[in-house]
Amino acid sequence: MDGLTLSRTDGQTLVEQVMETLRTRIAGRKAAPGTKLPSIRQLADQLGVSRSTVVEAYDRLVAEGIVQSRRGSGFYVAGHLPPFSLSDSGPALAREIDPLRITRQALDSRRIRSNPGCGWLPSSWMPQEEIRRALRSLARAPEASLTEYGTPLGLPELRGLLAVRMADSGVEAHPDQIMLTESGTQALDLVCRLLLEPGDRVLIDDPCYFNFLALFRAHRVEAIGVPRTPAGPDLDAFEAALKEHRPRLYITNSGPHNPTGTVLSPVACHRILRLAEAHDLLIVEDDIFADFEERPAPRLAAFDGLQHVIQIGSFSKTLSASIRCGYIAARPEWVDALVDLKLATSFGGGAMSAELVLHLLKEGSYRRHVQGMRTRLAGAMNALIPQLKAIGITPWHRPEAGVFLWCRLPNGVDGAALTRAAWEDGIVLAPGNAFSVSQGCGGLMRFNVAQMQEIGIIGDLASILAGGPEFS
Amino acid sequence: MDGLTLSRTDGQTLVEQVMETLRTRIAGRKAAPGTKLPSIRQLADQLGVSRSTVVEAYDRLVAEGIVQSRRGSGFYVAGHLPPFSLSDSGPALAREIDPLRITRQALDSRRIRSNPGCGWLPSSWMPQEEIRRALRSLARAPEASLTEYGTPLGLPELRGLLAVRMADSGVEAHPDQIMLTESGTQALDLVCRLLLEPGDRVLIDDPCYFNFLALFRAHRVEAIGVPRTPAGPDLDAFEAALKEHRPRLYITNSGPHNPTGTVLSPVACHRILRLAEAHDLLIVEDDIFADFEERPAPRLAAFDGLQHVIQIGSFSKTLSASIRCGYIAARPEWVDALVDLKLATSFGGGAMSAELVLHLLKEGSYRRHVQGMRTRLAGAMNALIPQLKAIGITPWHRPEAGVFLWCRLPNGVDGAALTRAAWEDGIVLAPGNAFSVSQGCGGLMRFNVAQMQEIGIIGDLASILAGGPEFS
Repeated sequence: MDGLTLSRTDGQTLVEQVMETLRTRIAGRKAAPGTKLPSIRQLADQLGVSRSTVVEAYDRLVAEGIVQSRRGSGFYVAGHLPPFSLSDSGPALAREIDPLRITRQALDSRRIRSNPGCGWLPSSWMPQEEIRRALRSLARAPEASLTEYGTPLGLPELRGLLAVRMADSGVEAHPDQIMLTESGTQALDLVCRLLLEPGDRVLIDDPCYFNFLALFRAHRVEAIGVPRTPAGPDLDAFEAALKEHRPRLYITNSGPHNPTGTVLSPVACHRILRLAEAHDLLIVEDDIFADFEERPAPRLAAFDGLQHVIQIGSFSKTLSASIRCGYIAARPEWVDALVDLKLATSFGGGAMSAELVLHLLKEGSYRRHVQGMRTRLAGAMNALIPQLKAIGITPWHRPEAGVFLWCRLPNGVDGAALTRAAWEDGIVLAPGNAFSVSQGCGGLMRFNVAQMQEIGIIGDLASILAGGPEFS
Repeated sequence: MDGLTLSRTDGQTLVEQVMETLRTRIAGRKAAPGTKLPSIRQLADQLGVSRSTVVEAYDRLVAEGIVQSRRGSGFYVAGHLPPFSLSDSGPALAREIDPLRITRQALDSRRIRSNPGCGWLPSSWMPQEEIRRALRSLARAPEASLTEYGTPLGLPELRGLLAVRMADSGVEAHPDQIMLTESGTQALDLVCRLLLEPGDRVLIDDPCYFNFLALFRAHRVEAIGVPRTPAGPDLDAFEAALKEHRPRLYITNSGPHNPTGTVLSPVACHRILRLAEAHDLLIVEDDIFADFEERPAPRLAAFDGLQHVIQIGSFSKTLSASIRCGYIAARPEWVDALVDLKLATSFGGGAMSAELVLHLLKEGSYRRHVQGMRTRLAGAMNALIPQLKAIGITPWHRPEAGVFLWCRLPNGVDGAALTRAAWEDGIVLAPGNAFSVSQGCGGLMRFNVAQMQEIGIIGDLASILAGGPEFS
């Protein structure tokens, strides 16, 4: 067990620090069950603490069941690994930029006053009346949809409708190439189960949607970042990463990209697909923000014909996040394996959710709702940009559409520190480094333009910024 | 690459058989990417085919991208593994006893006439009217529940109600020890993600619920069977398996067990827990059938106080399989890691499903519905047993409660052959070996007593059985 250094945390005794050092090593899968641990003397020397401190730390870890003491032989990592913990398995991140902490904060409405760091629209923007009508209509529907499991692929009529919607953005998919899932995130998880092995490498945009980074930790794969430009990934860096890391997958959004609001240029689209063919790379195109676009930007799945590209999507952002329903469109020969993985790990999809989504999409009112939302978002974006500029925050790129504005903070301001200060006031922010695998976005921040309409939020941010570089 | 033998399939050319042999080896993760494949001469000798056959097979596999040809050096497994396929990763099973095939057949209602092999009640038995009322009531509810993500743990009021329900069977759990999921299967999948590493061993009852076996393949863990007796697992075999295989987990149902309908005796309960403590074993108790019991049988989670035991459940069997909602109750210190895994792989739970389940459980009508269902099931069970006996099928055990009757087929009748013959008539059966990791249940069959009320089904089975040992 080389390279151990004491994990120092304020307010912990030396014994606790020694315990934490060993616990982190074991939980991080860096010391397998049965591995011999350093002797008391060795560990005391390595960490620069007294032997009695090490003795007490080992005693307490034995009591916790993490370490086994074998008489006359020393200390060993106990028989089974401790439970897998996402927070112990990635790089140690400050709370403010840890993807899972941000998600939890944003979802836990009890302490939230304003939520400009979240990825969804305020509920007042969502089609409440249409959903109420759909519920009443389902209450009168034939009984099958109320109590039965979904079919293996999911509701045929909804898959048919999705095929038509995909055709609108140029993607040709037969309804039997489309499998319904319980969410866009589950869709992505199933694709990872299909295509990734532990230890594989995955290309992502830097910055990218932060939950991708959490999901990759769950799959024990390594994320390789490619800098994002306003026209897509930096293509030279993309090619170099393919050659150096031989990644299995590239995962991206092609509609308004999260967090930058950019779209792929046709040139980038074409060149990415050529590189994918040459380097045996598969691509997952997360199309979850598609309905925010007035004119669809180029889609990788459209150019590729669903050969190297898998497209996924859901309705959480435009219809409801409470009605769980997503989908995967993939090569026909992969669909059986995806269905098997779905059945084994979640049994069926949510048949009632699929019925509700079908009902809502079929109604002409969905088109009107989406149209109204786009207009309202464009207005909110136009109003927000000068307000942010007035407090020293400037757009990195001006998006054509969507919910997000990716911004530079005033010179010298660190996004994580600003986030911490804002949270004290009940404001959830999304600091740049939560999205960045290289941790190169410390001076950037993602704003949700709809949530930024909250009265007083600009003033609150201005006061926090005025508090000085540490905002304390 | 030792031990290759030609995979012979009727109707395939020799070239196709050679291709299939290599493809299976590669898809089964037995030859990693980059592994050198046998030379043309070696492979021709090993499989007993001509060199030109091998040349053509390699050429076609190169065209498929599964094999790489490196000039002057030979053939190699191509750069990336093919997509992960559950059907290629377990033992090769006949279609009739393959868990995933049975699930697909049972879920695909288009070809089904009768479904006595499925695990759920006919929709006419389910609380249709109550669900309609709950939908109408939700249509009038405040907007938050219609469009928002769930909180990280899930609807607090439903978790409180679950804690009260668990207390009824003696299980003490604080609502904050309970996390909602999108289904019982997802609950089990998340527990596997928390506690298992690829290559781990898991104890299961032999026979056990067949989807456990599919789920374990997805997690790449090995299932170790312990014979099930009418009082629980065979305790001597259980102890021997702990010593020999050092499994991480034991997964079982304690309420009416699927497929045998048995329950744990208090003695078995106590001894399993003592063995778990002694051997560092964790237990998952799948309580999905709990509401079918008139008097709750002993629960491992009750005796153990949720220390070594994790309890999971859902409402698919008693309320609706279309409204997806399950839960996990676990040690407080594991809940954070479970929430992180849920957020990373499915984002939130289905907030609308949770609202509907809460509404249905709170109503007094749920208790009446469940009571009526139990009485009706007991009546169906009483009526079915003599009908089955009359055609030579006898109960292995007479359950106190539940949906399932686990039966011995007439002497010499093979469950898989009977299942195949019945499927020709549109009847889905659940043959014993689908539930058995040892494949020792060839002469057994699980019947769903509610689905067996279908008019004419006993006569149909009698005619098929009369068709002779091959039922052809």
